[in-house]
Amino acid sequence: MKLNIALLAGDGIGPEVIDQAVKVCDAIAEKYDHQISWKPALTGAAAIDAVGEPYPDETHEICVNADAVLFGAIGHPRFDNDPSAKVRPEQGLLKMRQKLGLFANVRPTFTFPSLIDKSPLKRERIQGTDLVFLRELTGGVYFGKRGREDNGNTAYDTCTYTREEVRRLAKKGFELAMTRSKKLCCVDKANVLETSRLWRETVQAMEKDYPEVEVAYEFVDAVAMRLVQWPNSYDVLITENLFGDILTDEASVISGSMGLMPSASLGIKTKLYEPIHGSYPQAAGKNSANPLATVLSAAMMFEGFDLKEEAQAIREAVNRSLEEGVVTEDLSEVGKSYKTSEVGDWLAKNV
Amino acid sequence: MKLNIALLAGDGIGPEVIDQAVKVCDAIAEKYDHQISWKPALTGAAAIDAVGEPYPDETHEICVNADAVLFGAIGHPRFDNDPSAKVRPEQGLLKMRQKLGLFANVRPTFTFPSLIDKSPLKRERIQGTDLVFLRELTGGVYFGKRGREDNGNTAYDTCTYTREEVRRLAKKGFELAMTRSKKLCCVDKANVLETSRLWRETVQAMEKDYPEVEVAYEFVDAVAMRLVQWPNSYDVLITENLFGDILTDEASVISGSMGLMPSASLGIKTKLYEPIHGSYPQAAGKNSANPLATVLSAAMMFEGFDLKEEAQAIREAVNRSLEEGVVTEDLSEVGKSYKTSEVGDWLAKNV
Ligand SMILES: CC(C)[C@H](C(=O)O)[C@@H](O)C(=O)O
Ligand SMILES: CC(C)[C@H](C(=O)O)[C@@H](O)C(=O)O
Repeated sequence: MKLNIALLAGDGIGPEVIDQAVKVCDAIAEKYDHQISWKPALTGAAAIDAVGEPYPDETHEICVNADAVLFGAIGHPRFDNDPSAKVRPEQGLLKMRQKLGLFANVRPTFTFPSLIDKSPLKRERIQGTDLVFLRELTGGVYFGKRGREDNGNTAYDTCTYTREEVRRLAKKGFELAMTRSKKLCCVDKANVLETSRLWRETVQAMEKDYPEVEVAYEFVDAVAMRLVQWPNSYDVLITENLFGDILTDEASVISGSMGLMPSASLGIKTKLYEPIHGSYPQAAGKNSANPLATVLSAAMMFEGFDLKEEAQAIREAVNRSLEEGVVTEDLSEVGKSYKTSEVGDWLAKNV
Repeated sequence: MKLNIALLAGDGIGPEVIDQAVKVCDAIAEKYDHQISWKPALTGAAAIDAVGEPYPDETHEICVNADAVLFGAIGHPRFDNDPSAKVRPEQGLLKMRQKLGLFANVRPTFTFPSLIDKSPLKRERIQGTDLVFLRELTGGVYFGKRGREDNGNTAYDTCTYTREEVRRLAKKGFELAMTRSKKLCCVDKANVLETSRLWRETVQAMEKDYPEVEVAYEFVDAVAMRLVQWPNSYDVLITENLFGDILTDEASVISGSMGLMPSASLGIKTKLYEPIHGSYPQAAGKNSANPLATVLSAAMMFEGFDLKEEAQAIREAVNRSLEEGVVTEDLSEVGKSYKTSEVGDWLAKNV
């Protein structure tokens, strides 16, 4: 297969972890006889510094014309504590999601047998956890009207959803549930929010089209609790943008390290793959960041091309690296830890 | 002291747990020579059934004229899956918060030595946790404009904050931090939301008035994660209404049972005390619900009257009940469990 992949390394540890994924993908391409052509493009603070824009048009062109996008991370603390900053790296991320129409963010959470005791949660609570969040990614309060009034003394943000936006996300949820345990949980705050009531009524109306799927409706506050209490009681969860942001980060704790969880963002045409950890600027340039979430995102990418064997080869190599302790410092016990690039090299050699 | 307490039992397990708090308060009054006059009033689904309104004017009158309000819980599943319901129990709760001006919801999270192993989190992660959330309670998306457009196919909710609303909440946060470890965390989503940027800039401007307080600014998604990873790295956290709703419920898991955590809601004049668990309709009428969160809320109430000894007496009795295993089924090991009313009786006898 000929694959054209847009490569958006981004900020902070982004470039380092992306490098490792590239190595692993190249090794897979060699082994399975594919040709990957990488198209690097600027994004985030890096793009602001270079061209004054966090998601430049040239980058968008490259993404639109690619078969998939592999993405690192975006964000720089320089902008976080400056409420008056005009251009922010995150705007690039949001613009990218919107312009590429990436409406469904798929975030699996699972445990690794060899890492289960790393979790802050007790083994018996998390064993067997294998859940997937489908987070709506191009709507809600992220993209609603916002601003100031009254000389800057009043601020507002608007959360908006259309029935169609809910439906296309929920459809992916029902379909995913059909391939798994046929359990779907719709997470909302329908006891307060009008948008949540629209979510709930839209999903309720779809139930009849998927009679085999058992649908539960839970409030976001209750899920924030149960996710830590009984994560393995969940399977597929669908939710709106902001709730998804909060809950998927919370869920990532289950696996024991943020450095492990991959994600895919699905659009009408384009698919984008990225680790769910952020740019983690404190570690940038130290060659110490954990590249596994990005490598596992690359595995999801191969799966997206229906290249299951390739995806499986990557996952097996990751599992072996964990078992043999070829891991970065966030995962190493008192023993030896490896550099980001060493883990990448090892994986590329062992896929 | 003469105390006039409005008593709002509400729905579900509300009446049962409130009864136990009343017993305990009466025992305290007897022991310390206070006179408590209880003024029961309707609220929630119970009030809808009786008078068609979840927070009737008579109830409001009683609350306004009371020295404090002791509140059970509100909510009934009958309304949850009916997106078209015109009157909802929760509206009563929100109306009550707004009309009583209860802008600061104080939610402590702490661990009990005798219960620490009940937590889904590992002992070493939670030991020593003693944090307090100050959740803004009368603003944000809970009270903004909401509605439908486009024949009901588009829904929206608006989140609004004024600088003054942020300031009065943050002031409570700084003051509380000064009485504790002088650490304050402002939780927001300033990389996306305009209201969060207003929060952040308002709190930043207040820092100079509290030079001893060390202020951290963290994104809500990061806090959702770290709260489970390292809860004891937090002390006082301030946040807006919806984030507070989600995070305080998540935090309640730390202690090992939702049935333990009390809260206070502070207004300009009125103070209201309530357990943070909800109405838990599945258990209603079974005399099995855990009354401790409500009893500990009563302890916060005595503290609110500056009756520290009384508050302490209640807390000690609760601790002893836990140590001696006089607990409801949610907390009992294989051993014997007690009924809601039995726990209440025991506490009333032992304060
Ligand atoms: C960086 C930020 C804007 C972003 C979001 O909130 O969506 C991030 O937290 C994420 O989850 O991808
Ligand atoms: C019942 C609901 C409206 C309420 C809220 O969201 O504030 C509850 O969850 C709470 O936290 O007191």
